[in-house]
Amino acid sequence: MDFLEKLAGAVRKNKSLVCVGLDPDPSLMPEGIGVLDFNRAIIQVTSDFACAYKPNFAFYEALGIEGMIALRETVKSVPANIPVIADAKRGDIGNTAKAYARAIFDCFGFDACTVNPYLGSDAVEPFVQYRDKMTFILCRTSNAGAADFQSLRCETPKGTKQLYEIVAEKASVWNEHGNVGLVVGATYPDELKAVRARYPETPFLIPGIGAQGGDLAFTVKNGLDKNRERTVINSSRQILYASRGKDFAEAAGKAAKTMRDQINAVLAS
Amino acid sequence: MDFLEKLAGAVRKNKSLVCVGLDPDPSLMPEGIGVLDFNRAIIQVTSDFACAYKPNFAFYEALGIEGMIALRETVKSVPANIPVIADAKRGDIGNTAKAYARAIFDCFGFDACTVNPYLGSDAVEPFVQYRDKMTFILCRTSNAGAADFQSLRCETPKGTKQLYEIVAEKASVWNEHGNVGLVVGATYPDELKAVRARYPETPFLIPGIGAQGGDLAFTVKNGLDKNRERTVINSSRQILYASRGKDFAEAAGKAAKTMRDQINAVLAS
Repeated sequence: MDFLEKLAGAVRKNKSLVCVGLDPDPSLMPEGIGVLDFNRAIIQVTSDFACAYKPNFAFYEALGIEGMIALRETVKSVPANIPVIADAKRGDIGNTAKAYARAIFDCFGFDACTVNPYLGSDAVEPFVQYRDKMTFILCRTSNAGAADFQSLRCETPKGTKQLYEIVAEKASVWNEHGNVGLVVGATYPDELKAVRARYPETPFLIPGIGAQGGDLAFTVKNGLDKNRERTVINSSRQILYASRGKDFAEAAGKAAKTMRDQINAVLAS
Repeated sequence: MDFLEKLAGAVRKNKSLVCVGLDPDPSLMPEGIGVLDFNRAIIQVTSDFACAYKPNFAFYEALGIEGMIALRETVKSVPANIPVIADAKRGDIGNTAKAYARAIFDCFGFDACTVNPYLGSDAVEPFVQYRDKMTFILCRTSNAGAADFQSLRCETPKGTKQLYEIVAEKASVWNEHGNVGLVVGATYPDELKAVRARYPETPFLIPGIGAQGGDLAFTVKNGLDKNRERTVINSSRQILYASRGKDFAEAAGKAAKTMRDQINAVLAS
């Protein structure tokens, strides 16, 4: 089953567009619990409310080899019907990108990966060659520094365009097999709306809700794909760290359910 | 000792600007040897001819947990007087970039790291905060796809500039503590020459020699810093895979020495 089928299945089953970002930070986690146990508890209480999970490699690499083992086991701990996105933001020259794609898809068994476009086509190509996997290209990231380069106006044969718009265009060229999506942050509502209007069917991974301050209602109204089953709205800290007490899992489950229901309320309004 | 002191020491001791890229690919390695043993053999025969080592994370991640252990042990196997550069090309939002910086500098113990600029200032900041470590910003990468975005002409208050030039300018702003360098590929000689002319003292990591086809003599003549001790010219495959036979280590040592001597011959001419 390819990524989009798996995602659509989870979206329908759980009536959810919520992607849970699995970014374990020991300084925010309840004391005395290991990363893998923490993740497993979070997965257990959120798996009826999530359409996808998204571990970010940084939080595992920061814990060394133990962290990488926890990452591997975390991917295996996600129910088989819910896709897992590697938030790895990789990007390297062709020969090397091939090794990264192998690491993420074959070795760790992820269903999708985020990829940085700065190195151009040959950095993306080895990921896209995995046709049943999804490659999400960083288009407009959710952070403040995004504007530094992504907002630059660049010359093109059809007039000037901002860099993130040119990236989105290029991604649609790379998308000949229907397995290339975009990362567009909820913290840039105008940009999100514009890119979505231009690409109504493209899979979007939307970070920036919650701790980063993106507006959920605006995102739901302006960020979803036509069929409402190819867009995942991510939340990490707001769900994972809803409580630092013994009730952390219960609180995370509630936070995920609340976010799911808020999205559905906007959709129904 | 900070990165630049360590690098200058190795450059002088070994009279070398050669950085050995430690990119173990089992399909190219001699049969029956493990990655760590391979790397240790390569390090042993090249440590009199190299000024730096540069493992690329992709090749280790592709081997799973075993690969990451080999990476950790490889860093420890490099003589203490030679700096080790993490070719990780990381780039993520501030909070996450902090975890990557911790992983690379604290956990693995690297002396320097390559960082992708697409996410802007807050993606770079956590790396630069490690003042005794070097952050090499991807400016002009060595691959064919580099031109896709890096060559775009962008509007600036001072007229149009190509994206890689704007990245170089931004990197010089980030360089207030003298620990930000640039990655500029030897496969783009005009760009290399132009960026070097503009920033005569900035540390450069220059990939693209050897298998990728960059011209060594041109690179030496036009790519070095003023003092000739802040520029590392990388070669991976040409050294590592000089032979696939039992003499692989001997052949790699010879290839490293040859490259070092070729560089010095150009400098002396």
